[in-house]
Amino acid sequence: MTEPIRVLVWGENRHEQLEPTVAERYPDGMHGAIAQGIEANLGDRARVRTTTMDEPEHGLTEEVLADTDVLIWWGHAAHGEVDDEVVERAHRHVLEGMGLIVLHSGHWSKLFMKLMGTTCTLRWRAEHDRALVWTVDPTHPIAQGIPHPMIIEEAEMYGEHFDIPAPDELVFISSFSGGEVFRSGCTFKRGYGKIFYFQPGDQEYPTYFHEGVRKVISNAVEWAQTLRPERTIPVLLRYDTDDFYNGQGYQGALSAEAAAAAEQLAAQGAGEE
Amino acid sequence: MTEPIRVLVWGENRHEQLEPTVAERYPDGMHGAIAQGIEANLGDRARVRTTTMDEPEHGLTEEVLADTDVLIWWGHAAHGEVDDEVVERAHRHVLEGMGLIVLHSGHWSKLFMKLMGTTCTLRWRAEHDRALVWTVDPTHPIAQGIPHPMIIEEAEMYGEHFDIPAPDELVFISSFSGGEVFRSGCTFKRGYGKIFYFQPGDQEYPTYFHEGVRKVISNAVEWAQTLRPERTIPVLLRYDTDDFYNGQGYQGALSAEAAAAAEQLAAQGAGEE
Amino acid sequence: MTEPIRVLVWGENRHEQLEPTVAERYPDGMHGAIAQGIEANLGDRARVRTTTMDEPEHGLTEEVLADTDVLIWWGHAAHGEVDDEVVERAHRHVLEGMGLIVLHSGHWSKLFMKLMGTTCTLRWRAEHDRALVWTVDPTHPIAQGIPHPMIIEEAEMYGEHFDIPAPDELVFISSFSGGEVFRSGCTFKRGYGKIFYFQPGDQEYPTYFHEGVRKVISNAVEWAQTLRPERTIPVLLRYDTDDFYNGQGYQGALSAEAAAAAEQLAAQGAGEE
Amino acid sequence: MTEPIRVLVWGENRHEQLEPTVAERYPDGMHGAIAQGIEANLGDRARVRTTTMDEPEHGLTEEVLADTDVLIWWGHAAHGEVDDEVVERAHRHVLEGMGLIVLHSGHWSKLFMKLMGTTCTLRWRAEHDRALVWTVDPTHPIAQGIPHPMIIEEAEMYGEHFDIPAPDELVFISSFSGGEVFRSGCTFKRGYGKIFYFQPGDQEYPTYFHEGVRKVISNAVEWAQTLRPERTIPVLLRYDTDDFYNGQGYQGALSAEAAAAAEQLAAQGAGEE
Repeated sequence: MTEPIRVLVWGENRHEQLEPTVAERYPDGMHGAIAQGIEANLGDRARVRTTTMDEPEHGLTEEVLADTDVLIWWGHAAHGEVDDEVVERAHRHVLEGMGLIVLHSGHWSKLFMKLMGTTCTLRWRAEHDRALVWTVDPTHPIAQGIPHPMIIEEAEMYGEHFDIPAPDELVFISSFSGGEVFRSGCTFKRGYGKIFYFQPGDQEYPTYFHEGVRKVISNAVEWAQTLRPERTIPVLLRYDTDDFYNGQGYQGALSAEAAAAAEQLAAQGAGEE
Repeated sequence: MTEPIRVLVWGENRHEQLEPTVAERYPDGMHGAIAQGIEANLGDRARVRTTTMDEPEHGLTEEVLADTDVLIWWGHAAHGEVDDEVVERAHRHVLEGMGLIVLHSGHWSKLFMKLMGTTCTLRWRAEHDRALVWTVDPTHPIAQGIPHPMIIEEAEMYGEHFDIPAPDELVFISSFSGGEVFRSGCTFKRGYGKIFYFQPGDQEYPTYFHEGVRKVISNAVEWAQTLRPERTIPVLLRYDTDDFYNGQGYQGALSAEAAAAAEQLAAQGAGEE
Repeated sequence: MTEPIRVLVWGENRHEQLEPTVAERYPDGMHGAIAQGIEANLGDRARVRTTTMDEPEHGLTEEVLADTDVLIWWGHAAHGEVDDEVVERAHRHVLEGMGLIVLHSGHWSKLFMKLMGTTCTLRWRAEHDRALVWTVDPTHPIAQGIPHPMIIEEAEMYGEHFDIPAPDELVFISSFSGGEVFRSGCTFKRGYGKIFYFQPGDQEYPTYFHEGVRKVISNAVEWAQTLRPERTIPVLLRYDTDDFYNGQGYQGALSAEAAAAAEQLAAQGAGEE
Repeated sequence: MTEPIRVLVWGENRHEQLEPTVAERYPDGMHGAIAQGIEANLGDRARVRTTTMDEPEHGLTEEVLADTDVLIWWGHAAHGEVDDEVVERAHRHVLEGMGLIVLHSGHWSKLFMKLMGTTCTLRWRAEHDRALVWTVDPTHPIAQGIPHPMIIEEAEMYGEHFDIPAPDELVFISSFSGGEVFRSGCTFKRGYGKIFYFQPGDQEYPTYFHEGVRKVISNAVEWAQTLRPERTIPVLLRYDTDDFYNGQGYQGALSAEAAAAAEQLAAQGAGEE
């Protein structure tokens, strides 16, 4: 793979504007710190860009997404303000093969919830817990070069039950000072896309300057890039017997006669109301 | 469990109205045949009802769903006509613990797609293939009493790739005369709900009178019923340190000051447009 | 299922004989306390017996195992003294459908290692850590009625990495005062048998008198009982085309001619040595 | 990774010696054909060697295994003749991180059975069935560049139920002319090692000259190579509170006093017999 991985870090960029302490902690934005961590680890192997919710179409136009191999998502305070159309578009790109890394509070983003199909709820507490990130899948590419455990001195606590589908692979489990545990590193495949959820990273702490956290995210970027040659979405196709390779487009579930009758039925139904 | 399982079979009921051959094959509707198969297998252990898309709110009011332990879904020709609000409601009930059995063409229903997060597409052919349903998880409750293989003399072919998340458990794999294969019996957990997808059952064939198919569906009803005492949805709660049992409701992601600033920012944004 | 589940609790019974404090803590042996917990929870639904390593064939004769639906294994100090032939026999019974619950230090028993294929190693510390057992699969039968979290005031710490195959289902994750985490409740299917590993329960603590621990083990007994009508082992069989149900016994990998040649070759090899 | 992957193809080499038709089909042995296929696909990225059962210690000395990144196993007629000590050694190397690819009839090898913990039995028929290999995990590295389906004109039928643990990842499912299905491409992690089982490849057919089969095996070689820097086996270690990184070796399960008492007890037991 000689071409660099095209990475796009999406930042909600609200805390940075609304809370001076966050702006001070992350002078280039949280997205900026995340991007710098990837550049520091991958160098020429990645081309890293950032964008934020403030941009037109939240910076996630069709053109931009088509030019993105791996999208990284950080959002928290404004999930509800993300436009549904943009969510649909990003969801489609994931199913077509764009990698997705969802960080921390992104667990409650529309995009992650749409991919998971569940509430993605959890328990939490912002009280300076120490987090220990333990590797439970030591041969996984995302876990390479990560201390066991990885210590994060101050962190927001996220605890179980985390309402997600059972992950395809459970890579990390975190504990917090208070005794809570969390499945903090999880992989999922959806359509032709690979997804990694990673728990560390609150606006209240300098987590995205942590060497280990940066290494995990960088490993995940390399893991999430699709190996498929083209970006296409899975489609429903009809195949004749003995013709395994030439699918035919969907024409609807009804015969021509039945479809006509169905239209009539629908018209009657409309008339009744 | 002395109370009978409250089963609701939902039928789209379009083919039966539009195609005389289907009406003849399934004089009580496909939903009727499915319901009768469950009654034949479970007897007093289940209370089986049916409803159809033609009913107000498609027969799936809050009251009806609250009175349902396991919902069975058969739809095909009119997925697009199912009201989004009803889909939201049924989705919520699944996450709260209602069991769901999705049959055959229900793979493309809004409800199943919303739970899976993927396109749920596949390859297909309606050419009287013979289907063989092979058990790959012989200790699974849903596989008990099912021949290995189970033979379905005439069936619609569904073939891979089936674009679903990797199932929690793969119970059955089917082959078809043409050589295609399909993961035809899959379990998924979402929220507090248990989901079983089962491939057999097209309107063109009398599949829902097949003894083995009826047994699988009946086994799945017993498997899908939740064991939890109450129907609740997972929620996001804050927990104080050392208080593991008294979660507090979510107050938003921002401090009072930051929230006020956010409102101002949003107002500016609105003014600019 | 009207017949009671036939449960056999196997105790190594070494600590009880060698350490007076353990004997005092568990006057009926650890196996005795475990058995009493199951009886207290399942009552007539189970017939619970105990046996120990001191018995001939460690109390695990063919006859005894054939009369056992679910075997519970507690061993620690004398894994190496368990006879290989008995391990082979118990392993076979698991593959034939006998349920198996492996407790605590049983992770390093020959039987569990043989079923897992890995080293089953971990990190540990016996320093009175508090354990919190968190449910991550809230619809699982084994988790029903268990507090979230379940608190065990004093416990031996077991920490990751636990070298096991990725479990089929991860039901519980524990944290310990020191910050370590452990996949403490795991299910596995092997052959026709269902296996549950559960971490709590050291000889130094009265863990098997803990209500929640007893409830988990009792739930696991009900879960682990096979649903299959007969105890048989999977076999390799040849099937003629179009005959799906009448398998024929294995005759070896070679034709008669080749087998004869192979014997000759082997004889030559023996002569050369 | 600039160093080439060190691949070793192990061939049982019995059919080639005993059956002239096999010798003719595979003039360099089946292991030779497998090795050539890897070389054709990976070129400089792999250093491929072969060895056979006829060599001292079956060609699998400690030195040889320590010099192997990925071991490929083909055996069929002489599983029972493979020395247990060699199996132990190879098993240990897998747990330490050596990749393992088990082909076709290797499902019944001592090594694969020891890693799986099950009988690894299946149904079979050698009657020139056509095999279709369908991809069910289209983003998996092993599936890249493989036709969907991949057609193998003549093949030995292997059918379900295949008695293995549920694979970590199911990559391929095959169907056969007779209608049987088989989970034909499965990944497993055990210890620090990655394992791929792949069904195609009988001595009766020229399967290892098939372009697609060769590509799958070559992809699997790249996938199975460990990413860990050193080959070590997981060990059981004790950790003091707050010291997460300095584990201490195991001293046995008993205190000094109890250990002395245990010896006495064992001596008595010996005396009684």
